Amino acid sequence: MNRTKVRVLLAMASTLATFTAAATEPNAPASDLLGFTPAHAATQLGLEQRFDAQLDPAELREWLKRMASAPNQVGSPHDKANAEFMLEQFRAWGWDAHIETFEVLYPTPKKVALELLGPQPFTATLHEPPVAGDATSALPGVLPPYNVYGGDGDVTAPLVYVNYGMPDDYKELARLGIDVRGKIVITRYGGGWRGLKPKLAQEHGAVGCLIYSDPHEDGYARGDTWPEGGWRPAEGVQRGSVADMQQYPGDPLTPGIGSTPGAKRLAIKDAKTLLKIPVLPISPADATPLLKSLGGPVAPATWRGALPLTYHVGQSTAKAHLTVLSDWNRKPIYDVIAKIEGASAPDQWIVRGNHHDGWVFGAWDPLAGNVALMAEAKAIGALLKQGWRPQRTLVYASWDGEEPGLLGSTEWAEAHAKELQAKAVLYVNSDTNGRGFLGAGGSHSLQHLVNQVADGVTDPETQVSVGERLRAHLMIEGSDSKAKPEAKANAKLAADGGDLPIEALGSGSDYSPFLEHLGIASLDLGFGGEDDNGGIYHSRYDSFDHYLRFGDPTFEYGVALAKVAGHIVLRTADADVLPLRFGDFSQTLDGYVGELHKLIEKTRKATAQQHQLLDAHAYALDSDPTRPLLPPARDSDVPAIELAPLDRSAGQLERSAQAFQTAYARQAARGFALPAARLRQLNRQMGRMEQLLTDADGLPGRPWFKHFIYAPGMLTGYGVKTVPGVREAIEARRWDEADRYATITAQVLDRYRAQLDQLTRLLAPSN
Amino acid sequence: MNRTKVRVLLAMASTLATFTAAATEPNAPASDLLGFTPAHAATQLGLEQRFDAQLDPAELREWLKRMASAPNQVGSPHDKANAEFMLEQFRAWGWDAHIETFEVLYPTPKKVALELLGPQPFTATLHEPPVAGDATSALPGVLPPYNVYGGDGDVTAPLVYVNYGMPDDYKELARLGIDVRGKIVITRYGGGWRGLKPKLAQEHGAVGCLIYSDPHEDGYARGDTWPEGGWRPAEGVQRGSVADMQQYPGDPLTPGIGSTPGAKRLAIKDAKTLLKIPVLPISPADATPLLKSLGGPVAPATWRGALPLTYHVGQSTAKAHLTVLSDWNRKPIYDVIAKIEGASAPDQWIVRGNHHDGWVFGAWDPLAGNVALMAEAKAIGALLKQGWRPQRTLVYASWDGEEPGLLGSTEWAEAHAKELQAKAVLYVNSDTNGRGFLGAGGSHSLQHLVNQVADGVTDPETQVSVGERLRAHLMIEGSDSKAKPEAKANAKLAADGGDLPIEALGSGSDYSPFLEHLGIASLDLGFGGEDDNGGIYHSRYDSFDHYLRFGDPTFEYGVALAKVAGHIVLRTADADVLPLRFGDFSQTLDGYVGELHKLIEKTRKATAQQHQLLDAHAYALDSDPTRPLLPPARDSDVPAIELAPLDRSAGQLERSAQAFQTAYARQAARGFALPAARLRQLNRQMGRMEQLLTDADGLPGRPWFKHFIYAPGMLTGYGVKTVPGVREAIEARRWDEADRYATITAQVLDRYRAQLDQLTRLLAPSN
Repeated sequence: MNRTKVRVLLAMASTLATFTAAATEPNAPASDLLGFTPAHAATQLGLEQRFDAQLDPAELREWLKRMASAPNQVGSPHDKANAEFMLEQFRAWGWDAHIETFEVLYPTPKKVALELLGPQPFTATLHEPPVAGDATSALPGVLPPYNVYGGDGDVTAPLVYVNYGMPDDYKELARLGIDVRGKIVITRYGGGWRGLKPKLAQEHGAVGCLIYSDPHEDGYARGDTWPEGGWRPAEGVQRGSVADMQQYPGDPLTPGIGSTPGAKRLAIKDAKTLLKIPVLPISPADATPLLKSLGGPVAPATWRGALPLTYHVGQSTAKAHLTVLSDWNRKPIYDVIAKIEGASAPDQWIVRGNHHDGWVFGAWDPLAGNVALMAEAKAIGALLKQGWRPQRTLVYASWDGEEPGLLGSTEWAEAHAKELQAKAVLYVNSDTNGRGFLGAGGSHSLQHLVNQVADGVTDPETQVSVGERLRAHLMIEGSDSKAKPEAKANAKLAADGGDLPIEALGSGSDYSPFLEHLGIASLDLGFGGEDDNGGIYHSRYDSFDHYLRFGDPTFEYGVALAKVAGHIVLRTADADVLPLRFGDFSQTLDGYVGELHKLIEKTRKATAQQHQLLDAHAYALDSDPTRPLLPPARDSDVPAIELAPLDRSAGQLERSAQAFQTAYARQAARGFALPAARLRQLNRQMGRMEQLLTDADGLPGRPWFKHFIYAPGMLTGYGVKTVPGVREAIEARRWDEADRYATITAQVLDRYRAQLDQLTRLLAPSN
Repeated sequence: MNRTKVRVLLAMASTLATFTAAATEPNAPASDLLGFTPAHAATQLGLEQRFDAQLDPAELREWLKRMASAPNQVGSPHDKANAEFMLEQFRAWGWDAHIETFEVLYPTPKKVALELLGPQPFTATLHEPPVAGDATSALPGVLPPYNVYGGDGDVTAPLVYVNYGMPDDYKELARLGIDVRGKIVITRYGGGWRGLKPKLAQEHGAVGCLIYSDPHEDGYARGDTWPEGGWRPAEGVQRGSVADMQQYPGDPLTPGIGSTPGAKRLAIKDAKTLLKIPVLPISPADATPLLKSLGGPVAPATWRGALPLTYHVGQSTAKAHLTVLSDWNRKPIYDVIAKIEGASAPDQWIVRGNHHDGWVFGAWDPLAGNVALMAEAKAIGALLKQGWRPQRTLVYASWDGEEPGLLGSTEWAEAHAKELQAKAVLYVNSDTNGRGFLGAGGSHSLQHLVNQVADGVTDPETQVSVGERLRAHLMIEGSDSKAKPEAKANAKLAADGGDLPIEALGSGSDYSPFLEHLGIASLDLGFGGEDDNGGIYHSRYDSFDHYLRFGDPTFEYGVALAKVAGHIVLRTADADVLPLRFGDFSQTLDGYVGELHKLIEKTRKATAQQHQLLDAHAYALDSDPTRPLLPPARDSDVPAIELAPLDRSAGQLERSAQAFQTAYARQAARGFALPAARLRQLNRQMGRMEQLLTDADGLPGRPWFKHFIYAPGMLTGYGVKTVPGVREAIEARRWDEADRYATITAQVLDRYRAQLDQLTRLLAPSN
């Protein structure tokens, strides 16, 4: 996966703090399942119990051990073998399965080298040595650590330290009077998505980029290092993709279409997501001599990591010499696709996915999640053998090529776009999995379903439901006097006993093409928060041995994930009416719109303050002449921004959602006693509601991203930006664009609302 | 000095954020000097210009070099020589000077040793080696690093790491299931006053205490280390006193009286301020093997420092062996006291002091401040020779024995208590001095005087006034979105252009006996914020060479300090009416009372929240079973607390202060044309106003501290607690005591107010 950490909370989207109506509604009793008549609900709960009974942690352990026994990156023999193994299993469990192959651009390193020249020369090892107690760490077949989709290059230049390499860091550099033109930047992991670091470095004129793991974020400062503890050892390296996935994920040469053998491909030089400058990830051990070589100002306090040295910004007294040359061949990827056709609604699909490729052995990432998916598939197979069949069609998928850029899922989604938009009602994703608390993100119309399911799965460590445990966790987190306002608001929600909010999704795993390109309602699930996942992320030490000690040693959280995902899949498959609650979306949206108002006000105030300080010469007067800090560049004035269309549309949607909820509740009480054709029409239209949150032209400057409520941020990478057309325009001070996209987003919402009103009419008792 | 850092701001007392009235008053024009008729004001400004013209940075440099040329701790030959040198100078400059000697308990180390036993034994060096480029660092006569007033002991026990060793740290330890009984605690500097660390360790049953300097607070994580940069090198040690100065400062054997040769002394065993357990300060280099030996839980995130290791809480796998044995003899201390008798009001004294003893060479601390005081004395001597004489009496003092516990100032203040309470109208303190921004703390009736003086002294680096530069600094500090609410409020005050607030004083330098024991209006002054003072604080490397590179290389800030302190002294000496503005005190007090209300509400809310979390078993459900964290002990309920007497008294004082200000302004406009006897009576009574903020019985449990508005916190050490009788009772959940001291404090304020009303009557135009 491409996230630095599994989301540990349902609840981190700040916006959700504004919920109140949902919070005061008590949870439905277990039998009052959303989308089910009471009688059907009882049957369904019985089915889920039978499903649970099939889940065996010993099997998850066995699969994980086998699949993580050799390097399984894209193009490796074991990656293909894992796909074939799963194909065999799915078929044995009764699924209609096949492997779907795509051909993708996937450069692999031919030569990587890094040295510090000058009076104290140093040659970086760029190597993760074997570690005692980590059985696979000495195996062959591992590629040298690298960042896929960086440019080729052989450059010699002074180093400059740019902290996390994010936009604010470059503003600070400017105030320090330092620029990176013609330099190699050295940046630490953290603070924003990896791929933004070389992209911004390149935009600022750097000729190369090194990214290292500082022990402050990822090493001894967090906990004991592998193999004593779980955290990154001095020689550990975080690999990862640096494709510009905010433009589009998937094969860089086939945006928007499946990279099938005959597909029309871009020339490499025209692929917008490929960087031009060389990039290399390095270990803290290799970074230390480089950081020590830096002169210039002492780094600002927040830029300092945990290495035992004084961090300077640079430039370095000596030059560094960086070489990265790759083999730019295409490689095949292997998606395993397994299906069970629905009995009564075969044209409504529930898609469930997890990827199977790793950076090296990938025990945590992705196999811990993938074996949960396999357990679900096996259990569902057993239910089939007991005579059950889902009402809707199930599609289970194990994706290849997620790590370099969601390749397997994106190419499949693009290749089958039309069919998916016609049929898929839900995509359920998982990725890595660990011990601790349920994390769930996704489309907010699914929030109540997630809460109902979470209340029905038992936490292995505490024996309360995973929902109740999460509630306790949020209450504790928000009780810290230093907790952020959102955490405090979530603690209050948790204490009040209503539904817990789910997180809005950005990117970083395989839900992205389904949700953000195709507009299919999606979820992303996983447990975490008690494990030491960070420490071996994307390294050679992400191994079975590590997972057994610091992941989920008993595989009970693997089983818990299979239960949560499985119940969501089964419940959606068999519901009389799809278990969606649009009021939850509408309330969440209200929160987002409120945030936009606050963002404008905050920006206006900050701008006025900055202008006041500049006009008073306060920056100059405050500056220490021995450590000069230039005044910041003057920000543009904030004009009036017209959010009224958005306010109006959100308000109308609120009322429409309320009407739908009333009609839905009334019909549910009557056992959904509608004419069969009307019920079918209702379900069909409900299943496509999320698509009405998209616009064909997509977001400004990146048409692949079509969802107008959720998107990965252009300048946050994986981190979500909600109502992105408007929010990112404000953040980037493109005032006209903010006005324009407030109107366009309002139009999108109006289409959604019109369809919702149509659903309400379909629910009317007799017409 | 005993502060870890010179206060860099006028403005850090949170309370002052509530000022508004003062802020909207524009600063008086330079000629509108508080306490002066317009004609007299012009003369006064001329006098101050002549004073300034006498100040020569080259002299400050020469004195500093000489006085820091050998170790000058209490009892050292050079400490005495410095006193004698100053005596000679003062006399040559025309002052009536003498040395006043006291005999104080001052234990010095006979044997200090520290070793780690077990399989990986280690013997601590306990030594600061000579450093290239630091000429005095190889000189003999330096005592081994130690903490004065710790107990004698020779103990062998496991180590436990207790972070800063503050009360909250022990609460966290309890939740981790760890106690320190029978252990040696290792704690880092920071987070609270040094002396509290062994005191709290002792109260929790520890048998020994080590205090080390972590590079996170004080070393390479802050900047380059000495001699490359100014920060503490790996082998640097922070010495310091660990007497329980919250009980009383001064000689532990003579609380409340001067330790003159014949004074009645306590037996050592009865001295409440002496610790029983051995304590030793150590360097980061010596601490590293000890910290590495610790097992048990990984330290909580906020407990981790910047050494390259994973911080564990302990206990250690091996035992440590600590020996501290001292020579408990009495030693003489030498206060230099110089006087110029006032022409018209010889019985009104302005006392100005700085100490001269250091921990080793003491170039920064205290000599940088002491040479400013000397420059003032020389300049005043020159004015005398020009024919000027102060109207009130000037007393310049260079204290000995400040470092072990404000010995010289306290014994002198105690020995002369009656005369000082009868005569002293102001005490002006300084201590270390550096580059940057004016820091001023003290009695709030002096706030306007400080602001007027700060607006008339030019900052050496920017050529604006030191007041204007501070204003810019506060505006910038408060503009950070992460700034604390107080910093934001101060930024607003600064931007609005009114008076800047001065800080409330706690303890840590020689103002304490004057302000808090005798009730004499006091100020503490110094520049800082741009220097790297922290790094060599209380170490062998606090040297002339260090000061020349990282302090105030041109001594222009030494001159600026001499100007600020000198102008305050001269202006108070010659004012027609003492330059006090009681309305500033009254408004500050309103802020403090408001804070108490908020504190109660905050405590009440936090208690309710903790009870809710305990009742919901949230702590238990949130806890990771592999890293258990016990629920906290249940806090007592918060009853209704009766602050009404305080509210009423503060309100009445506000009105009385307003009436006084009106009467004062009217008289000032008339040139203070009052009968001479009435003017004398007014001045005499004004000069004793601050004493009315004291109560003879003192604060709960520590009768030496008699000021009811300002005191060092029992659990913060040097950090101030305002309205301490009430505030500390609330913080310690002694609810009855809070009620009782609200009433007692109100009675104190009522006496102050009654006297203020009397002053107002004296100002009446004709009666």
